Amino acid sequence: MRLYNVHTLEETDMKLNKHFRGFETEIVSLEDALDRVISNDIYSSIPVPTFNRSTVDGYALISSETDGASETMPMLFRYDGEVEMGKSVSNDVNESNTIYVPTGGMVPEGADSMVMIEYTEKMADNIAVMKQSLPFDNIIKVGDDVKEGQLILKSGKMLSARHIGVLAATGHFDVEVYKKLSVSIISTGDELITTDKKLVDGEVFDINTYTIKNMSKKFGLTVDGTHVLKDDKQLIKDTIADCLRESDIVVISGGSSVGHKDYTADIIDELSEVDEGVIVHGLAIKPGKPTIIGKVKDKLVLGLPGHPVSAMIVYEQIMRMYLDDINDLKQVKVEGILSKNVHASPGKETFVMVTVKDGVVTPVLGKSGMITLMSSADGYIRIKANDEGLEKGNRVTVYLLD
Amino acid sequence: MRLYNVHTLEETDMKLNKHFRGFETEIVSLEDALDRVISNDIYSSIPVPTFNRSTVDGYALISSETDGASETMPMLFRYDGEVEMGKSVSNDVNESNTIYVPTGGMVPEGADSMVMIEYTEKMADNIAVMKQSLPFDNIIKVGDDVKEGQLILKSGKMLSARHIGVLAATGHFDVEVYKKLSVSIISTGDELITTDKKLVDGEVFDINTYTIKNMSKKFGLTVDGTHVLKDDKQLIKDTIADCLRESDIVVISGGSSVGHKDYTADIIDELSEVDEGVIVHGLAIKPGKPTIIGKVKDKLVLGLPGHPVSAMIVYEQIMRMYLDDINDLKQVKVEGILSKNVHASPGKETFVMVTVKDGVVTPVLGKSGMITLMSSADGYIRIKANDEGLEKGNRVTVYLLD
Repeated sequence: MRLYNVHTLEETDMKLNKHFRGFETEIVSLEDALDRVISNDIYSSIPVPTFNRSTVDGYALISSETDGASETMPMLFRYDGEVEMGKSVSNDVNESNTIYVPTGGMVPEGADSMVMIEYTEKMADNIAVMKQSLPFDNIIKVGDDVKEGQLILKSGKMLSARHIGVLAATGHFDVEVYKKLSVSIISTGDELITTDKKLVDGEVFDINTYTIKNMSKKFGLTVDGTHVLKDDKQLIKDTIADCLRESDIVVISGGSSVGHKDYTADIIDELSEVDEGVIVHGLAIKPGKPTIIGKVKDKLVLGLPGHPVSAMIVYEQIMRMYLDDINDLKQVKVEGILSKNVHASPGKETFVMVTVKDGVVTPVLGKSGMITLMSSADGYIRIKANDEGLEKGNRVTVYLLD
Repeated sequence: MRLYNVHTLEETDMKLNKHFRGFETEIVSLEDALDRVISNDIYSSIPVPTFNRSTVDGYALISSETDGASETMPMLFRYDGEVEMGKSVSNDVNESNTIYVPTGGMVPEGADSMVMIEYTEKMADNIAVMKQSLPFDNIIKVGDDVKEGQLILKSGKMLSARHIGVLAATGHFDVEVYKKLSVSIISTGDELITTDKKLVDGEVFDINTYTIKNMSKKFGLTVDGTHVLKDDKQLIKDTIADCLRESDIVVISGGSSVGHKDYTADIIDELSEVDEGVIVHGLAIKPGKPTIIGKVKDKLVLGLPGHPVSAMIVYEQIMRMYLDDINDLKQVKVEGILSKNVHASPGKETFVMVTVKDGVVTPVLGKSGMITLMSSADGYIRIKANDEGLEKGNRVTVYLLD
């Protein structure tokens, strides 16, 4: 009979860091970069803008030539053509001429200032300027926005729409990111059937393949497949071995305890190579004690509790730690005031499902394994292992669920 | 020459509600349900559990038969077999017998209580029970978790992993959701080139197809295609007409102002049918004034400002309103203290990009159109149209960006 080898989440994090390192990277096109995580710092390959850009519709000129210009004393400049958007002009601006430039257009060589069209008047071949202009008025200079070689995104950043926009603006059309890891998901239990079948007495619909699969997608993993299996050791072992050939991570829910039908730990040890096998068996959290972290052929094999709520809590905690280096998983937290006393389990970090409304945090009541805990909660609170519980009126942090 | 027909966001919301209604639904498998939004209330088709379920490994019996049982005074019950997981048994429990049931197993007919194995001892053909048991100890009764016909998810809920788990548990393997809307994205400007080309003087890389495309994905839209076009009215018109054949929404950035090269409003009016055309031209927000909302062949045609930051702000505001009925877009907000005075534009709601660190909110400085506003901000604050600005020390709400 196996015994638990219980670890706290902090100890588990250290074990994960020690046993699993060196994630691979790949180059992807900007087209496919959404939600990917960059694996190194990115610098601008060009200055932005690449030319002195006008921020107004108006006339490019040398500012010192407008000294003293006013409505009553306009200064005349020879009109010398116009700049088209996206083009440069061959003629330069000098002391006596001016060139029209639209908003966003390139300010011609020689000019150091733009006068808004509102302060000018066209008179035959000349432009009358009725306002004094200062150097770089209405111009964004080369590199004003981003300097060539400037750091634009730090390694580890998960790319959202605006980051991809900035990459496009600075001349990147592909980007190095961490490879997506793939996962296979197995749910075990003689009582489990898939939702396409009809329930008979004693059976329950499998939940964990659905929850773990969709959580995996949110964590940026590729899901290779899901399997619902009876508690048959050889079948489970063969399936895990198959999954290990295909996927980077294999997750098995159920069979993670230390009873006579709990095969996961033995299978991990049997399939693993030297210096591998079960690393952690048992987490000092509630719910979630029957958890297994194993290493087989350099891959993560994770045994989750069978209870759907426990499985979700454990999976989230472990994947946040495991993917920490290669993923920027957001965790939205809110603060609130507890409306009831909450008991904790001494020696274990306790996770309690709660609702939050108008700053009031209320525990969701229900027996272990109830699915309503899952659907009616807004999030969970965490009670440290050395706390005996929390009291009504305590200020608590709620980790919001999707 | 066109004139603006300026609306506030609230007025725009009313216009959107008036002109666009009746979104379609479809049935999808649970496999494809992640992030989809359900279009009606969902009720459980079964009770959960469907049988009296044991929450422990132990013995099923009639609780009243254990009255007075203790370690010193055990009560004997005839051992009458065991329940296997996922199965029922043909024999019932009566006054004198007991049946073993594992955690999660079905409690046999006749029994009303489970005694944990820790409080029993096997003695030949009998089980000695050393603890008094109460009715429904260690049992989750039929429907305790979810009653048959109980409301489990309300219309409008966006399905995350746990909701899909609950649907699976309650016997749903498909679900009615709002159809995904599709969008085509057009970016216009003579100065724009795509990132696969080499920049020459006066040109800039197009940003808006990237930002609008990836924002669209986050909004749950299907992106049919992106187009970067020169300011050629016929070309833009033909492309919009093509996109309208394929997509539910067409978004055009640039050309939304009232200048001589701003074609979007005219094209919308030319393509539209009776009682359609430009509905809003100009938003009372800054940045974002040059915005067009049009209706063509019952579809939304949206003209965004060309400036990338303005385009993103406007697109987010309008899509949150437009998709309100069929999408549950989360908006994460945090509170903080402003570190500097911020000026606003009278008569316009002003959006200011900010960073947030340790509760301190600092405006990101930069001229209009700078991409660094986009990459370095954590979110934005909104200053109401009738406020002249905000002062250092004011408490503000920050709308966080992805």
